Amino acid sequence: MDYRVEKDFLGECRIENDRYYGINTKRALENFKLKSKTVNLKLIREIALIKKAAAIVNKRLNRLPEDKADAIIKASEEVIEGKFDDEFKLSALQGGAGTSTNMNVNEVIANRAIEILGGKKGDYSIIHPLNHVNMSQSTNDVYPTALRIAAIHMIRKLSNSLADLQEALQIKENEFSEIIKLGRTQLMDALPMMVGQEFGAYAKAIARDRWRIYKVEERLRQINLGGTAIGTGMNAPLKFVFMITDVIQDLTKLGLARTEFPIDITQNADVFVEVSGLLKACSVNLLKISNDLRLLNSGPKGGIGEIELPMMQAGSSIMPGKVNPVIPEMVAQVAMKVIANDYAITIASSSGQLELNAFIPLIAESLLESLELLNDAVVLFREKCIEGIKVNEKRCKENLEKSTVLVTALVHHIGYDKASEIAKKALESDKTIREVLREENILSEDEIDKILNPYQVTKPGIPGK
Amino acid sequence: MDYRVEKDFLGECRIENDRYYGINTKRALENFKLKSKTVNLKLIREIALIKKAAAIVNKRLNRLPEDKADAIIKASEEVIEGKFDDEFKLSALQGGAGTSTNMNVNEVIANRAIEILGGKKGDYSIIHPLNHVNMSQSTNDVYPTALRIAAIHMIRKLSNSLADLQEALQIKENEFSEIIKLGRTQLMDALPMMVGQEFGAYAKAIARDRWRIYKVEERLRQINLGGTAIGTGMNAPLKFVFMITDVIQDLTKLGLARTEFPIDITQNADVFVEVSGLLKACSVNLLKISNDLRLLNSGPKGGIGEIELPMMQAGSSIMPGKVNPVIPEMVAQVAMKVIANDYAITIASSSGQLELNAFIPLIAESLLESLELLNDAVVLFREKCIEGIKVNEKRCKENLEKSTVLVTALVHHIGYDKASEIAKKALESDKTIREVLREENILSEDEIDKILNPYQVTKPGIPGK
Amino acid sequence: MDYRVEKDFLGECRIENDRYYGINTKRALENFKLKSKTVNLKLIREIALIKKAAAIVNKRLNRLPEDKADAIIKASEEVIEGKFDDEFKLSALQGGAGTSTNMNVNEVIANRAIEILGGKKGDYSIIHPLNHVNMSQSTNDVYPTALRIAAIHMIRKLSNSLADLQEALQIKENEFSEIIKLGRTQLMDALPMMVGQEFGAYAKAIARDRWRIYKVEERLRQINLGGTAIGTGMNAPLKFVFMITDVIQDLTKLGLARTEFPIDITQNADVFVEVSGLLKACSVNLLKISNDLRLLNSGPKGGIGEIELPMMQAGSSIMPGKVNPVIPEMVAQVAMKVIANDYAITIASSSGQLELNAFIPLIAESLLESLELLNDAVVLFREKCIEGIKVNEKRCKENLEKSTVLVTALVHHIGYDKASEIAKKALESDKTIREVLREENILSEDEIDKILNPYQVTKPGIPGK
Amino acid sequence: MDYRVEKDFLGECRIENDRYYGINTKRALENFKLKSKTVNLKLIREIALIKKAAAIVNKRLNRLPEDKADAIIKASEEVIEGKFDDEFKLSALQGGAGTSTNMNVNEVIANRAIEILGGKKGDYSIIHPLNHVNMSQSTNDVYPTALRIAAIHMIRKLSNSLADLQEALQIKENEFSEIIKLGRTQLMDALPMMVGQEFGAYAKAIARDRWRIYKVEERLRQINLGGTAIGTGMNAPLKFVFMITDVIQDLTKLGLARTEFPIDITQNADVFVEVSGLLKACSVNLLKISNDLRLLNSGPKGGIGEIELPMMQAGSSIMPGKVNPVIPEMVAQVAMKVIANDYAITIASSSGQLELNAFIPLIAESLLESLELLNDAVVLFREKCIEGIKVNEKRCKENLEKSTVLVTALVHHIGYDKASEIAKKALESDKTIREVLREENILSEDEIDKILNPYQVTKPGIPGK
Repeated sequence: MDYRVEKDFLGECRIENDRYYGINTKRALENFKLKSKTVNLKLIREIALIKKAAAIVNKRLNRLPEDKADAIIKASEEVIEGKFDDEFKLSALQGGAGTSTNMNVNEVIANRAIEILGGKKGDYSIIHPLNHVNMSQSTNDVYPTALRIAAIHMIRKLSNSLADLQEALQIKENEFSEIIKLGRTQLMDALPMMVGQEFGAYAKAIARDRWRIYKVEERLRQINLGGTAIGTGMNAPLKFVFMITDVIQDLTKLGLARTEFPIDITQNADVFVEVSGLLKACSVNLLKISNDLRLLNSGPKGGIGEIELPMMQAGSSIMPGKVNPVIPEMVAQVAMKVIANDYAITIASSSGQLELNAFIPLIAESLLESLELLNDAVVLFREKCIEGIKVNEKRCKENLEKSTVLVTALVHHIGYDKASEIAKKALESDKTIREVLREENILSEDEIDKILNPYQVTKPGIPGK
Repeated sequence: MDYRVEKDFLGECRIENDRYYGINTKRALENFKLKSKTVNLKLIREIALIKKAAAIVNKRLNRLPEDKADAIIKASEEVIEGKFDDEFKLSALQGGAGTSTNMNVNEVIANRAIEILGGKKGDYSIIHPLNHVNMSQSTNDVYPTALRIAAIHMIRKLSNSLADLQEALQIKENEFSEIIKLGRTQLMDALPMMVGQEFGAYAKAIARDRWRIYKVEERLRQINLGGTAIGTGMNAPLKFVFMITDVIQDLTKLGLARTEFPIDITQNADVFVEVSGLLKACSVNLLKISNDLRLLNSGPKGGIGEIELPMMQAGSSIMPGKVNPVIPEMVAQVAMKVIANDYAITIASSSGQLELNAFIPLIAESLLESLELLNDAVVLFREKCIEGIKVNEKRCKENLEKSTVLVTALVHHIGYDKASEIAKKALESDKTIREVLREENILSEDEIDKILNPYQVTKPGIPGK
Repeated sequence: MDYRVEKDFLGECRIENDRYYGINTKRALENFKLKSKTVNLKLIREIALIKKAAAIVNKRLNRLPEDKADAIIKASEEVIEGKFDDEFKLSALQGGAGTSTNMNVNEVIANRAIEILGGKKGDYSIIHPLNHVNMSQSTNDVYPTALRIAAIHMIRKLSNSLADLQEALQIKENEFSEIIKLGRTQLMDALPMMVGQEFGAYAKAIARDRWRIYKVEERLRQINLGGTAIGTGMNAPLKFVFMITDVIQDLTKLGLARTEFPIDITQNADVFVEVSGLLKACSVNLLKISNDLRLLNSGPKGGIGEIELPMMQAGSSIMPGKVNPVIPEMVAQVAMKVIANDYAITIASSSGQLELNAFIPLIAESLLESLELLNDAVVLFREKCIEGIKVNEKRCKENLEKSTVLVTALVHHIGYDKASEIAKKALESDKTIREVLREENILSEDEIDKILNPYQVTKPGIPGK
Repeated sequence: MDYRVEKDFLGECRIENDRYYGINTKRALENFKLKSKTVNLKLIREIALIKKAAAIVNKRLNRLPEDKADAIIKASEEVIEGKFDDEFKLSALQGGAGTSTNMNVNEVIANRAIEILGGKKGDYSIIHPLNHVNMSQSTNDVYPTALRIAAIHMIRKLSNSLADLQEALQIKENEFSEIIKLGRTQLMDALPMMVGQEFGAYAKAIARDRWRIYKVEERLRQINLGGTAIGTGMNAPLKFVFMITDVIQDLTKLGLARTEFPIDITQNADVFVEVSGLLKACSVNLLKISNDLRLLNSGPKGGIGEIELPMMQAGSSIMPGKVNPVIPEMVAQVAMKVIANDYAITIASSSGQLELNAFIPLIAESLLESLELLNDAVVLFREKCIEGIKVNEKRCKENLEKSTVLVTALVHHIGYDKASEIAKKALESDKTIREVLREENILSEDEIDKILNPYQVTKPGIPGK
């Protein structure tokens, strides 16, 4: 027979003998049989890291015999290394506030530790998933702590990727700093500007994103380990409570700190809403930039066509030679997805009740997914799009010269109303502002030359003064 | 003294003597002192209509003496006519599942009816807001019924406005049916089409909106009057239950029907989510169309510039002669607002608990606001934008002629890969497809003429066949 | 060497020789290297089905030689059967409006068909992915058609699952039709009702969901096959356009119809917003019901405790014997996720521009995910929760008897104000309504008996009459 | 005749003579005739303050004659004082990126200044709305600056209100610090805790909100005045650019600073998304707390009933004596509305294009509404709910004593599996844990006494050790 039988207070259950997970995982696999993503492995690994830390502390405090503790530590490390990834196939969307995921890790570590000690899987008299692996812990302190650690790692990665993107945009800012083009407000012809200034504005927006995401890490550093079930700390001796944070510190090298009031963090998920809100702000900037690039790249002939994005792949199964802005389109969809995930996080976080938020699995899944997607998209955006952008100077010049916006330079000299009339006349007759000014004999040629110089217009000041 | 004193089981309260509302409204004004919009008057009027209907039925059943019933009927009619609009200043966002709004109507009608009968405001021995005006009713059946009636009226109006918009778009479809222009997918030059076809696609989308919104009315027709507090109908005699729907029918001329199972409708608000979801679909179409119009109108010189929207107002306080697409911009914002309101409705509706949804005031406010805004926006969109759109044929032609998309017509003749090469060559050398074909000597002039005819390309079939 | 070299107008690319996909897929795998889900296989299979249909039609029209057509048909069938699932690993979030996914299918089918004809993968002179497999198609007609077909299949499944859930709720309605309990509005004690009535209200809500979802299928039945790139039908001979829908009809047995105006459907995605809006309404009902069940099941000792959900798994890693309502918690999270997906669909759909919506991959991914998750959750909800619910009659009785809500039965007899006073007195003195009535000597014992009968209160009418 | 005729380059327009607004406002009133809220007066006043500042600077720079400048300053002050509120009736949802609102302020100030100088309204040769009042400004720098200033004022107010709420919660934390009650996770009986700890957790969450909102002010302090139309500063002399920020500083006493790169702030609205995201996080906490209070207050007899909220108003038009938790219900709806507004802000902000965001009117309306509603709700929540909360100690004790959760204290002594069995036995037989322990003869009475002490359980440590 390839099965072993495990038992809990609800009855018995058969488990395939090569499986390291046990009865709680087995039941959860059946209860949450959804065609959804499985639990993010980054979360699993941080839970295993906490198990390792707890075993270290419990060994020091002589609450766990050395051999058992060492076996648990070893098994935890193997989980962290990814050796048992196949044992973690629970649905990311699961009931039970993460208990099943915590149980899953407890069971895999217990059974692997039992093996290390020479026992047979399922013989929990050797190592018990709850009495030993989960000693002085509860899902309700382990799970949010693991989520915070996983999120901090991702946040650092994203912050760095944003810094790189910012730099790539600044390089373009410099590269294009002398190429003049038409500005546009509300999609209508507006004042001239340098192409570089356009990219400078993008760089600034991304710089803000980077700063926000870098700074928000500190909001995640407080952890509630030792709070156990509801934050009061029952079944966690005070010494354990103090030591566990230090050990986690050591293992992670992150500036984590014990919260003063674990009851709060155990039940409140607002910090994840805060983080997600910043990811949403970043998405808004990515949407804006990617849409702008698509606009400026539109054409190549029948659109604005002032910039050229790198050609990444054939764009059409029917129109030969067509190339589409696939990278900005991908970035835009990632941004939309992150915005949607923010909604999942918001609803789930607002649905906490009393001592716990039952919906933290959805929060964890959505937050980690958003962080991973954003980071990947930001890297690809830089490498496969921003860095290769070129300017079509000819087109920039054509578009600027056709427009009548330089009339704005006249406001100081002839007033808004008169300037409006001239602009209208120019547009209706398809003449340039200069031609109409000549016809109307309003300013001397010299004055016109001085005032209608597009280059001075891209800086503060009254043109012609 | 300009005050009267009213009393309930929580104590006493002073009310300005010229006020028709009473102690319940007074308390609610203080409790919900928010800088929010006040309760939608359309809702107030439909509640008053229900009060009238109930008085008619209670008179017929001899549960109310004729004089009292007639006074209530008269007072209700005055509320419906808007004579007491100033008495309804409660915050739209209010606790209590609408009880305060129902109480507000009960009190104003009671005090007005007391006056009609020659009494003094506040002498509820003559007409009592609850014993008489609210007889056999509860907020929990009155309020959702009034909301449904108000929504149906608005839905019909919106459906008609959408029909008008659809027609206006179809007129443009015909008007521009022979003007050829470049199509664009992903903002990149694609196959040619008629300008009219563009408007035809918009008309089709709006036609779907109209149909959906017209059809959804039937989902709102079931009402729970007679269900009283939780839908079981306590304190509503069976005869009352049967007659009240008929009277409401008569008064409204809408095809309303008594629900078989009032407990359901009293607690479930999913039908409002359904309606709002359709308003959201309509918003999606309005966003798409208004964004397209802004794109096609962009310029006038440095953008696509293929259509010209009517000029509605000066567009800039600094750039003379600039005109912006303000109507599509307004429409887009209304659409965004309706999408946001859909979220308020979704969260509120999902937060119902057991026998009631406490958050129906937010549902009502959001749904009626969305309906009103959409209807106004749809009317303005048609009158001040769609009907006045012109095509810039010259620009359409220029954009089409510059592009290389007609290469698609060659796929059948020379294959996708060869066609791709030709397209690439044309773009890189700034030549036309025709020129490259000649250079490469691939097809005869005759064949080229037959294949590269943009007009045949706007219809199904293999060009040149 | 284990690589072959493929080529397009952008250059060359090495492909592992055992791969059936080609250069376009290869490029897309690199361009969209996101840690996201991969393209839903249901979509892939429906695209393959369209390829099969096109080959059948092109064979009939003698546009494809019989051997090539048959090879394509055979290869398509193998894709439909899932034999090549490993070849479809593109990110669900991809730029290019689905072109990469269409190309992926074209390439796998082409290479498999080449093999069938005895050629070597990559020798597209035998079968060309675009000239042959994609003949007279474009991503822009194939992709939305496949999405519609996949969605219809899922909608039918979901509709059936909802019907089963409705039935399970109705069985409970009958089972509990004679057990009286306290109703609650705004979480406060309200009138009595039967436990069965509670479940009846849930059944009604689910019945509406089922009906809506069943009905919305017809909105998806219009397809734009033959419209090719922008809906004008270029490169699709009229005969092809007419025949392809018939063949698809035959193959799918769904009531699909050719749209009259393919330009519309090619660019407008509002129908997916409509469908998703209904899934959101269904989610709202599932949230309401699952939250209610959790409330009624709360305790078992220190909560409401009127019902008992089946115990599915141990609930706590620290509190022995604790059992949590994991199934409703899972259902709630699926509902929240569907609501969030609705937002992705809304934003993406509203971002279509001119002749196409570039973000249809996000729409497809989100819609199909919502449909799958909802269906699975609805099935599990029924099987693992609803069907096993029991009532704690003792608790129902206790809660009802402690409350003072029966005072409502007195309104008709002594007026609202007097009844309020009695209720207040009872609550403050911790006496029953009956005791206070006796003390106040207001009604005879007989009258009290007749009026304060909780059973008559669960039906319409004036108690005591 | 009571009309004057004004003129712009689009034609003439009649204006009622007593109106201070002019042709641009008039056109906008007609163009944006929506049943929406009107522009927030807080925004109008900050725009007027900028007009005042600009006049001060232009006077100092001798660009405006002293009498004209003084008249503009005086007129601006009158607008700030609210004397012309009736002149500002434009729809909050308006096209044109706020140009109409800026024009509205320009015109009212110009006409009032003309009057001050003894002229007649409409004689713009005396004071011109654009040449003089709007000198060196553009809507695109004035409007976002005014929005930032208005938002900062509201943020400070909200931050203070949150501090007061936090304090009120802490007072309750202390007041209830010795009253023990049952904790609940996932609505199921969990470990005991003090009632005060519950309120302590709420206080912590609100403290985070306060801190976040207090800190975010600094993100709003950068202003783009002097950037004019697209941020390049055309028509604003450098001296003006430097002086205007200082003057605004002086007038507002806020730590505002000129942005180094106005092009960025002119087009990017991500900072409003950031602020709104924090308001959303605050809403999540308010939803959690208000829902918790409603749960704990549920009953009074048939629910949890552990706390008593102050009674604010009669709760039912049909059930006498019923009192509902109307304040938490109102707070919850405000929170939902703020969450919905966040969506409007997100969509609008992500829809900026190139040099401007055309949808800033929706951003402004939504952000200011959220700030006002939240502030009012937070004040009312404290005054009318939190401060008056009482605990029902008897109920707390009953619920705790009935539960079996103290079994957790045994895990350390007898292991998780044995403890589970005992819990199950107790629940099934309706016995206490103590009774089952006695029956099973597992621990001595002394040990039982030491271990099962609920008070020690509310602090960290192993019970009985």
